[in-house]
Amino acid sequence: MEFIEQLLAASKKNDSLLCVGLDTDVSKLPKHLRKADNPVLDFNREIIEATADLVCAYKPNIAFYEALGAGGWSALKQTIEAIPSHIPVIVDAKRGDIGNTARMYAQAFYQELGADAVTVSPYMGFDAVEPFLEYPDKCVFVLCLTSNAGAEDFQYLFSEGSPVYEHVAERVVQWSKGGCCGLVVGATRPEQLKKIRQIAPQLPFLIPGIGAQGGDLEAAVRWGTDEQGQLAIINSSRGIIYASDGTNFAQKARAAAEGLRERINLYRK
Amino acid sequence: MEFIEQLLAASKKNDSLLCVGLDTDVSKLPKHLRKADNPVLDFNREIIEATADLVCAYKPNIAFYEALGAGGWSALKQTIEAIPSHIPVIVDAKRGDIGNTARMYAQAFYQELGADAVTVSPYMGFDAVEPFLEYPDKCVFVLCLTSNAGAEDFQYLFSEGSPVYEHVAERVVQWSKGGCCGLVVGATRPEQLKKIRQIAPQLPFLIPGIGAQGGDLEAAVRWGTDEQGQLAIINSSRGIIYASDGTNFAQKARAAAEGLRERINLYRK
Repeated sequence: MEFIEQLLAASKKNDSLLCVGLDTDVSKLPKHLRKADNPVLDFNREIIEATADLVCAYKPNIAFYEALGAGGWSALKQTIEAIPSHIPVIVDAKRGDIGNTARMYAQAFYQELGADAVTVSPYMGFDAVEPFLEYPDKCVFVLCLTSNAGAEDFQYLFSEGSPVYEHVAERVVQWSKGGCCGLVVGATRPEQLKKIRQIAPQLPFLIPGIGAQGGDLEAAVRWGTDEQGQLAIINSSRGIIYASDGTNFAQKARAAAEGLRERINLYRK
Repeated sequence: MEFIEQLLAASKKNDSLLCVGLDTDVSKLPKHLRKADNPVLDFNREIIEATADLVCAYKPNIAFYEALGAGGWSALKQTIEAIPSHIPVIVDAKRGDIGNTARMYAQAFYQELGADAVTVSPYMGFDAVEPFLEYPDKCVFVLCLTSNAGAEDFQYLFSEGSPVYEHVAERVVQWSKGGCCGLVVGATRPEQLKKIRQIAPQLPFLIPGIGAQGGDLEAAVRWGTDEQGQLAIINSSRGIIYASDGTNFAQKARAAAEGLRERINLYRK
């Protein structure tokens, strides 16, 4: 199934634009799990089981797994296997390399890990993205305007009448004629999000930054969605998966996810 | 030992600015190795043994290892362990993420893998780089002007009188006051390399693109080095490690590395 179909079906089934970020940091796990053989996987499985009827996607960030070496990579692969197949998995990798190498990354994420989508950096341009477009059922989300303070260092440089991030959005709209592309746009910059949605009315948007980073949820929903109130994937990581560090962590994560889904849906209508 | 000291010492000992890129692609390995338990590691060990007295650094690109999953990650770690400790290892990862996540990447590359330096993307700005600066003996190489065609998509956008890649070079010079920073500048763009060296006279430059990508070796040496003829790390991957696909591959890799080192040194004097 194509990524967009899969995303819309999961979103409809669960009445949700919420994406749960599986940024599982070993040092933040509930104490009772830490002595298990594979605490990261155990934790993720419980989170997935508790939230799988509330989300439109999951987004593991690879950094948290790579920090654990080969064992972390295995835990990531098993985590992706534990996610019900009708829910898309966006691997947050923010990669970008010359074509020859980007091809190996596409193989790593799509074939080896079994992800449905991946995030990439635009800095190296089209040939760093092209190999990902060769997988017709997958989707590549290009960093456009990020949620962090450092976004202002280069993304805001003004060139030929518009900032770099708008140039990125315009190019990605063109690239999307050759395969599924989306944009990553932080919820911390609502006015800019509105403008980027005008530039790319039909692309899926992955929107981080509403939780610990303090982004504006109402604006993320209002300006991030398309005309049908769809195609915004609103991510929360820490606010959900670390809602409690007790034995009830999965139950609390479910409550946090449910609450956030409801708030999103309130703004959506 | 600090990275720059380590680099200069290895460069002096081996009379070399050559960096060998360990971009080991399983599908390109000599046939006699493919049936081994760990063909990538066996291949890398032989390449390292054959070239360790000819280089100033090694640069494995993580993509080739991630394409093999957890086993690839182990092979990468064992490869780094097989490199003599006096030769710096630059892990080519081109990462970039918000501070919280960049910290996990720094942990992955510096603590888990034991690399001496890492490449990062500038797109997300300073807070994506800062966590790497917290390791005083390491060095972070920021993508400035890349060797591929797609470099022209965004790196050349002109803003406030100069292209984006010059803004990056200027910022990285500032960042380097807080820790060791270098720049990645492709050998395929000699005029621009010259200009970037003027902006950043004292930073180490990692220069890819002279082999399969057709960059200008003479210009890479002339404009890439600093005033002392140092601090240019000139990378070749495919031209060396795949010099032969026969049983004599390591011997041929040595010959290719020796020839390239000599050509570099010719232009250096």
